[in-house]
Amino acid sequence: MDLAQLYTTNFPEWYQQVIFDAELVDQSPTRGSFVIRPYGYALWEVIQKDLDARIKNHNVKNAYFPLFIPESFLKKEADHIEGFSPELAVVTHAGGKQLEEPYVVRPTSETIIYHMFERWIKSWRDLPLNINQWANVVRWEMRPRAFLRTTEFLWQEGHTAHATREEALKMVKAMLNEYKELAETLLAIPVIVGEKTANERFAGGEITTTIEGLMGDGKALQMGTSHLLQQSFPASFDVKFQAEDGTNKTPWCTSWGATTRLIGALVMVHGDEKGLALPPRIAPTQVVIIPIGSKDDLVQAKSKAHELAAEFKKSSIRVLVDESEGRPGAKYFHWEMRGVPLRLELGMRDISAGTCVVARRVVIEGQNAKEVLPLDGLTQKVAVILEEIQQNMFNRALSKRNASWFTAETFAEISERVADKPGFFQTGWCEKTSCELELKAIQCSIRCIIPEKKAEKCFFCGDASVQEVLIAKAY
Amino acid sequence: MDLAQLYTTNFPEWYQQVIFDAELVDQSPTRGSFVIRPYGYALWEVIQKDLDARIKNHNVKNAYFPLFIPESFLKKEADHIEGFSPELAVVTHAGGKQLEEPYVVRPTSETIIYHMFERWIKSWRDLPLNINQWANVVRWEMRPRAFLRTTEFLWQEGHTAHATREEALKMVKAMLNEYKELAETLLAIPVIVGEKTANERFAGGEITTTIEGLMGDGKALQMGTSHLLQQSFPASFDVKFQAEDGTNKTPWCTSWGATTRLIGALVMVHGDEKGLALPPRIAPTQVVIIPIGSKDDLVQAKSKAHELAAEFKKSSIRVLVDESEGRPGAKYFHWEMRGVPLRLELGMRDISAGTCVVARRVVIEGQNAKEVLPLDGLTQKVAVILEEIQQNMFNRALSKRNASWFTAETFAEISERVADKPGFFQTGWCEKTSCELELKAIQCSIRCIIPEKKAEKCFFCGDASVQEVLIAKAY
Repeated sequence: MDLAQLYTTNFPEWYQQVIFDAELVDQSPTRGSFVIRPYGYALWEVIQKDLDARIKNHNVKNAYFPLFIPESFLKKEADHIEGFSPELAVVTHAGGKQLEEPYVVRPTSETIIYHMFERWIKSWRDLPLNINQWANVVRWEMRPRAFLRTTEFLWQEGHTAHATREEALKMVKAMLNEYKELAETLLAIPVIVGEKTANERFAGGEITTTIEGLMGDGKALQMGTSHLLQQSFPASFDVKFQAEDGTNKTPWCTSWGATTRLIGALVMVHGDEKGLALPPRIAPTQVVIIPIGSKDDLVQAKSKAHELAAEFKKSSIRVLVDESEGRPGAKYFHWEMRGVPLRLELGMRDISAGTCVVARRVVIEGQNAKEVLPLDGLTQKVAVILEEIQQNMFNRALSKRNASWFTAETFAEISERVADKPGFFQTGWCEKTSCELELKAIQCSIRCIIPEKKAEKCFFCGDASVQEVLIAKAY
Repeated sequence: MDLAQLYTTNFPEWYQQVIFDAELVDQSPTRGSFVIRPYGYALWEVIQKDLDARIKNHNVKNAYFPLFIPESFLKKEADHIEGFSPELAVVTHAGGKQLEEPYVVRPTSETIIYHMFERWIKSWRDLPLNINQWANVVRWEMRPRAFLRTTEFLWQEGHTAHATREEALKMVKAMLNEYKELAETLLAIPVIVGEKTANERFAGGEITTTIEGLMGDGKALQMGTSHLLQQSFPASFDVKFQAEDGTNKTPWCTSWGATTRLIGALVMVHGDEKGLALPPRIAPTQVVIIPIGSKDDLVQAKSKAHELAAEFKKSSIRVLVDESEGRPGAKYFHWEMRGVPLRLELGMRDISAGTCVVARRVVIEGQNAKEVLPLDGLTQKVAVILEEIQQNMFNRALSKRNASWFTAETFAEISERVADKPGFFQTGWCEKTSCELELKAIQCSIRCIIPEKKAEKCFFCGDASVQEVLIAKAY
């Protein structure tokens, strides 16, 4: 089946085909891990640059902690080990010998970082202590899917310690807001901001907040999380500080992370029948120029293409001239599949007329797929079109998301409608985990608690609603 | 003992004290690994940014390959496994079960990358294939020293495949030259470019080239390597391509890497009796402004300091205003120890006079440590001074290096002089490994073969010299 058919009939298969055909990833010989190919990694580099600047704006500093964590560290916090224990990879031998104490390959770094916090934090003057790490982490995965669930993945993990709960909570929210801004302004993906239920919380967390996006098939994806940790967590590593009043206190800690999963979100939100579709701000190549013609004409077209490309580069437009052999049609197809936002077709007739043909990868309603533009002033015009496409893609994703955001009153209603057309189901919840767990039967979960209060009853037991929640199938 | 004494009497201890006191690193609970603290990591970030741009200029693309490599992969190339086998960390258990085949934590990624090259390279059209990876690697280390030899370290590893040996060799040299440029222009460390002897080659390499720096104690440090691989290495992973003439050929491969060890070099080349000394281009903080005075005066001084800092930032000068409590003297000491290149002292008397006091961290002969400069036009002046300091520090390091570069004719001469004053000993070598290995007795090794031909005889056996070499003690 071709991509267009798969897109409507078999979204998971469409996803697989797009990420492999667009050369974002490849299979690896390591179970559950994938190779991130240059085109995929280039997306990660744009995300890193944007997010790193956001993180540093909050007076957070990057550092690096060991990959290997003594196994005993993981066991110090009961909830934490319970949550992560089935996913751990363990180093038992090194340097030709069996180790006295095995090392766990970090699934996340709270434990080793709190061990260091114990050394670094003495007094209230040392707070807040704001640390971030860009790293690889390992969580053994039985049903891997590239970018979405992999044994090894890349991420940033922020870890901060504060003198008060208020300050820590402020940090939790500030970083979640950065994830939201990143998703919406860079990736053009609208997200919902909310809190996780106790059942879905981070292992060792008191509050877990999340941003949730809706993918092309109506399933939700957690795209970033920010946690307030249980104080018992730093306390189990003996992290404490002398407060201004001279008493010893345990700091309030936060952690927050975003991963290469964001690339999966990008594919699943914007991709379509033709393959990948990239919003201009994240596209490694924003404009591809295809010189057209044969022999001498082609030589001239190429020369003009490079002239234009040089102009574009001066304005920080990421451009590529496709000089490969082959028919123009095959090239259009190639770059469309790779999601390049804008294509310029440049032949001698165009050049003589002082124009070129500009084709958009994503065409919104009422728009022509191609337009003829004068070469004069083209750079500025292209810059404007790229920003317009960015906005259009966000709006298109927002409309799709909103069209799949339903209110529902009962489990039966959710059950019936989710089978027909998945999406977010907004409803009431009594706050009992037993009601929440019933959702497993229909492969759904509470994605998050949202502040808005509308429903009066719990979707399952009919008791008075305590929390307004969004329910969905999820990746 | 204080730093000044240690610097001249016990350089290794001086090094330890500087990197810990300046908060570049801290001990970790993981054997052989260290935590890279924010100030140390900031140095790595500057190196990464500079080097990443250099790498991309050679049409190399970043990608990411799995951390875990099937153990059998390492065994496919005989020299490679022999070289790395004593240093491997092995994952034997994961997801709660024993693994059928253990995974090795990557000590370097040739094996898994060649496995992928076999999939990606079909024809000469796919060449050159130029890949780079920023990653952590693990080589079990029995005698760890922070930055210099650690079980886990951070690096970039480049891997390229070419249709011809000439092209591959050109790449080997081009990347080594980038390391040289990085060392000299960013880190202000003069380096010697040369080839390693067979005995010192990369495990699986045909040619290993190196840049070697000379540290403050006269010992050499390998600061970057670039290899031409034995063709048998890609061949053992069945990597081949169809050449233009239709025949199947094995590509020529290169690999090249630079690591967090560069931070150790920075400390050991420029550091002195006062601690760390950073060349301005790499210094995370280039200028620290210390407002001086008490009460109202201090308020005004701080306000003026921030005004200046804002001006500096506009010119991309990395500046920090030290508003902490404490005596100015203690602050001078603090920032000197951390190697900040320039200090501005700003009191009310200075402000009234429209001046400030500027103190250099590194003062060269005939220079005043402090000078009084007008506030008017200060930003431009500071920018000029910073560039001047960068040049001075390179020149100072070059003079020191050249003063420790000796010619020697015999083993006895090297042996005697190295005990007295270590450095580079330039001499002749017959190319026999047996002569080379005699150097172990005096804790020396051949650091590299250099093109210049001066010596007539081998330093050990007295046979005719085939290669001019540099001998030194090394880290």
